[in-house]
Amino acid sequence: MENTVGIGLLGAGTVGGTLIRRLVEEHEAIGAKTGLDLQVRRVAVRDPDKPRDFTLPPGVLTEDAMKVVTDPSVGLVVEVMGGQDPAFDLVLAALDAGKPVVTANKELIAARGPDLIAAAERQGVPLLFEAAVGGGIPIIRPLSETLAGEQIARVMGIVNGTTNFILTRMSEDGQEYETALEEAQVLGYAEPDPTADVSGADAAAKAAILASLAFGTWVGLDQVYREGIEKVSALDIQFAAELGYVIKLLAVAERTGRGVCARVHPVMLPAEHPLASIRGATNAIYIEGPSIDELLFAGPGAGGEPTASAVLGDVIDAARELLAGAVVAPRIRFAAGALADFGDVTTKWSVRLLVDDEPGVLAQIAAAFGESDVSIKSVWQEGQGSEATLLIVTHGAAEGRQRVAADTLRHLEPVREVESVIRVESPEA
Amino acid sequence: MENTVGIGLLGAGTVGGTLIRRLVEEHEAIGAKTGLDLQVRRVAVRDPDKPRDFTLPPGVLTEDAMKVVTDPSVGLVVEVMGGQDPAFDLVLAALDAGKPVVTANKELIAARGPDLIAAAERQGVPLLFEAAVGGGIPIIRPLSETLAGEQIARVMGIVNGTTNFILTRMSEDGQEYETALEEAQVLGYAEPDPTADVSGADAAAKAAILASLAFGTWVGLDQVYREGIEKVSALDIQFAAELGYVIKLLAVAERTGRGVCARVHPVMLPAEHPLASIRGATNAIYIEGPSIDELLFAGPGAGGEPTASAVLGDVIDAARELLAGAVVAPRIRFAAGALADFGDVTTKWSVRLLVDDEPGVLAQIAAAFGESDVSIKSVWQEGQGSEATLLIVTHGAAEGRQRVAADTLRHLEPVREVESVIRVESPEA
Repeated sequence: MENTVGIGLLGAGTVGGTLIRRLVEEHEAIGAKTGLDLQVRRVAVRDPDKPRDFTLPPGVLTEDAMKVVTDPSVGLVVEVMGGQDPAFDLVLAALDAGKPVVTANKELIAARGPDLIAAAERQGVPLLFEAAVGGGIPIIRPLSETLAGEQIARVMGIVNGTTNFILTRMSEDGQEYETALEEAQVLGYAEPDPTADVSGADAAAKAAILASLAFGTWVGLDQVYREGIEKVSALDIQFAAELGYVIKLLAVAERTGRGVCARVHPVMLPAEHPLASIRGATNAIYIEGPSIDELLFAGPGAGGEPTASAVLGDVIDAARELLAGAVVAPRIRFAAGALADFGDVTTKWSVRLLVDDEPGVLAQIAAAFGESDVSIKSVWQEGQGSEATLLIVTHGAAEGRQRVAADTLRHLEPVREVESVIRVESPEA
Repeated sequence: MENTVGIGLLGAGTVGGTLIRRLVEEHEAIGAKTGLDLQVRRVAVRDPDKPRDFTLPPGVLTEDAMKVVTDPSVGLVVEVMGGQDPAFDLVLAALDAGKPVVTANKELIAARGPDLIAAAERQGVPLLFEAAVGGGIPIIRPLSETLAGEQIARVMGIVNGTTNFILTRMSEDGQEYETALEEAQVLGYAEPDPTADVSGADAAAKAAILASLAFGTWVGLDQVYREGIEKVSALDIQFAAELGYVIKLLAVAERTGRGVCARVHPVMLPAEHPLASIRGATNAIYIEGPSIDELLFAGPGAGGEPTASAVLGDVIDAARELLAGAVVAPRIRFAAGALADFGDVTTKWSVRLLVDDEPGVLAQIAAAFGESDVSIKSVWQEGQGSEATLLIVTHGAAEGRQRVAADTLRHLEPVREVESVIRVESPEA
């Protein structure tokens, strides 16, 4: 039949397994809606004898991943194994063989996207990765297609459900970081080794992809500034709340006067910002541009079902192009563009200090900021006997100057400790 | 040049004028990002001598719209004139001539979409209408592509900024409908003749399109149940608020046991629902499905800039397909499917009654609902001397049965008036 597309899967874990189950169980419904006959032909797994919650004819499962790619009955390859190796070689081989590839692998795209995109363009086949950012939230396609003509100014996203769950628990129940992390692990929102999430590494890969698509300038994974949430304390969240802010781990991609900048770090957001109310494991992406003003996309950012839904959307799209024999021009062109040095990018800082509560301390601190040309927006002081806690929020200044100011503070006599530094995103300068 | 696409516009009003200005002023930026050389070749306007805020070479403006369609230098037609006639004939002629069409015309698509979609399929050219629903919010593409594999359960949208502005003012400032409407007119959010917005007609066209795309069953404009906001009073909003609800005009498209149903009417939404916090002229669309759980898209639903941004995204996409000579299969297939009779669809009602405050009145009212097999969820009473106001919220029951119950109420001796009926959308049965 001319509407049949043979599908090969690399991986059958949470996302792959869900996708297979849906391709099998909803075969008729998908056919009615799309006109496609999608057939699972080959699936690469580590252990073909492991029990699965889907049923496929004998011989479909294989341990040899390259066989999935080279099987002549496979016209379209879905990569859901994760990691860079061997995923890179397999995806490249599929593209070089003229087979469309759908992947949910954010790390692969962020770290080695340009080589794969170049291979896809060379062969005129689609390489789609809607599920790589925001799980079930449609964001890649809107960014690279619907907003292709928009001169996007900034993209900010809550793109990691684990850290948003932890920060929400800390914020709503006053929990400390360790307690909230343990709860997230018990509930399955965090891995036994949570490093990839809490360090911001997962979000950084997504920030790189968002920045690349939003600005048409490829931003590599190693070019993303990254800080995790490990040092955020219940006290930071409490101080932020008193000033009308919420603390979120954000992926920020922005066009600055110095070039494109992508970064991931904890942010103090005004409580009324649309991203401030995104709770728990939900993800959300907020886009600013001159014509669209502001757009918000929110939904489930991870999990087998939502992610498989996004992969399936890409599979349907790629299958249609494959059947049409269409060589559609790439969805977005990446041109060489300047990347900003983060030290030159304007940021606003919130600095929490433990100081000796003595006359003149504030004057010394203000002078330290002044020397670095950083102007102070507000000071909030809370005395505790002979010591006091100061929370200083600055106006916008180059990140590098903020750092110099903070270093100067650390060496001031009455400053016992710079307890925390969290950047502030707010509309005012 | 092989990357040049000649564009013809039908209409140069708010959206068309903005699009032309952007195509001219941002020609280089768009080229850098997309690789396309988009040239405005012909523009149909009513009065070529009227001053415009864009500059085009002499001879580009014409009063003869069909000349835009037939001009051999025009490869792609953008229809932003609105209305069904003569837009239908012009769009059909363009498609029949093998030219891709981009339109922002919700009424045209909702009322006569099937004929145009058939023509586009016959010729293998794209017919794109991202801007027809939600203005600058990417929703058509996510619904018909990213979510193509999702068995969507329900779509609910705030898709008319005028009515949401009016309801927001009524809700936040206690204004009556007429006052809020006047303010909306002064501020330019409502037309001098606001009928199309306040009657729900604009939202109904969008509901038809959302239902058709979400369920793959074509729902015509005349098949959408429609009620406007003209009868919503400050008192309704106040009572709703006391019970924890917000009143919104929603476009609802849902898959029911009886078939697909599309409807537009005022709705009492729980204050914590994601759509409840959408204020002013902002639009938002909320999608529920088994895999994606819930998705929210929010942004500017109207206005020249956001709408032109969505049109431009479609133009870029259609231009790419045109240059590729690609005949990609249609984005979504429409199959004959059952449409539900609204009388059979389960709804929950909130009924506000003015009654004589005498013993036994509640028993009579409860009996009236009981006779129609409608069960009461809650009763809220406020006495005012010899009369009392009752607000009754029912559990879910067939719309037809709810109507019978309300009719019975109207004829009860102690019921002075059924003052308002507003449907409730809440997760509980």
